[in-house]
Amino acid sequence: MALWIRYSQDGRGGFGRLDGNRIAVFAGDLFSDPTPTGETVDLAEVTVDLPCRPSKFIALWNNFHAMAEKQELTQPEAPLFLLKPANTYRPSGAVIAVPEAAGRVMYEGELGIVIGKAARDVDETEAAACIFGYTCINDVTAPSILKADPSFAQWCRAKGLDGFGPFGPVIATGLDPASLTVRTLVNGRERQNYPVSDMIIPPAQLVSMLSQGMTLEPGDVIACGTSNGVGPIPKEATVEVVIDGIGTLSNRFA
Amino acid sequence: MALWIRYSQDGRGGFGRLDGNRIAVFAGDLFSDPTPTGETVDLAEVTVDLPCRPSKFIALWNNFHAMAEKQELTQPEAPLFLLKPANTYRPSGAVIAVPEAAGRVMYEGELGIVIGKAARDVDETEAAACIFGYTCINDVTAPSILKADPSFAQWCRAKGLDGFGPFGPVIATGLDPASLTVRTLVNGRERQNYPVSDMIIPPAQLVSMLSQGMTLEPGDVIACGTSNGVGPIPKEATVEVVIDGIGTLSNRFA
Repeated sequence: MALWIRYSQDGRGGFGRLDGNRIAVFAGDLFSDPTPTGETVDLAEVTVDLPCRPSKFIALWNNFHAMAEKQELTQPEAPLFLLKPANTYRPSGAVIAVPEAAGRVMYEGELGIVIGKAARDVDETEAAACIFGYTCINDVTAPSILKADPSFAQWCRAKGLDGFGPFGPVIATGLDPASLTVRTLVNGRERQNYPVSDMIIPPAQLVSMLSQGMTLEPGDVIACGTSNGVGPIPKEATVEVVIDGIGTLSNRFA
Repeated sequence: MALWIRYSQDGRGGFGRLDGNRIAVFAGDLFSDPTPTGETVDLAEVTVDLPCRPSKFIALWNNFHAMAEKQELTQPEAPLFLLKPANTYRPSGAVIAVPEAAGRVMYEGELGIVIGKAARDVDETEAAACIFGYTCINDVTAPSILKADPSFAQWCRAKGLDGFGPFGPVIATGLDPASLTVRTLVNGRERQNYPVSDMIIPPAQLVSMLSQGMTLEPGDVIACGTSNGVGPIPKEATVEVVIDGIGTLSNRFA
């Protein structure tokens, strides 16, 4: 069990293990045997950065039983996903300027899987070993863009505008994802609260299925899909995605 | 008018301007005032690399009048697109191992736009100035994956498997895209031949529209969509996407 965080301080980037309000600084590659430097820094003295830089950010649709039931969706046999581009990535603490083109935007609190070892055509056991850890994600969505053209659902654009993919603040390792609960708070008021155990395709199976023909790289992020309680982000609201055992992803939307 | 190419030689990467069979080597950043080193290398002595490393690879659907007419599609009012992940990128000359998970795969020869300057909320005139140049793309697709689930078209997966996004061999600058013709050859036999001028949303308008709320970064690639003549890639076939004025993207599919 560790909480890995990236940060910047006086223009220099670094990473380490978060322990309370202190970061034990590490050097090397987070995904390949990083070594402690012996230094520590105060969390209060740094700016939290993205915990990793995904080469791709996969976002699942229709992956929770409760939401599928409520929306009368059939259970998928394979992971149904879109990709979120790099211009969506934002760390916890960043103020997100919602683009004018977006119209009304919705929050979707989600569990994120972070890949630690390259995975291609792996079975579930191998897949579990390729998962580095877990993070919190807000899969921000502009529903009016999604449905603007009846001939083509614009998943990648509706979820791909600048700032629509905040994740962090840390990557937690050594957790059993099935024990986790995802909560989303808007201006401190709880709007989503659902158990990860309700997932239709759970993490190891998800990684195994996604890896068929498509290499997952260290640092790649998979947003596991959301459940009931999705709603609009009011102007100037702060949205927090809280997963006890991982932490709180917090962003103000301007 | 220049043809920019990236290459590797004895494990070292480099880039430069291609002139016939010689490369005039440059240093610095391709997109920000690169400087000639005075050296030259023979094209025959290097391995062609990707001409750039996109932070995102946008691929258009339904962007040619002739194909829209044939398939009885309505003309889109906005660019309809998916994203191709980094695991799809392959340079010209690479042998592409089609994943077993793909089933039958199709070629789609396309013009690619390469962004040279960051673009966000730009008008058409500004957009034209943000285009660095043009390349050749084969937007490889697995149609059985695309249509496997009637509730969700799997664009990103059907076009996102390993090796499904070859592009190159060069980025050509100083071209009028409307003068270009895209041809696709399978084992030397022409299967597609269509004018870029038939595009529904042409390059500068496309970049302007895509940039609304979504920052396009230097090196980002936009596949402009394909037209009629799409077909299957036979086993062991060589597919060439030929755009006179740019060059030939050639890949064997194993």
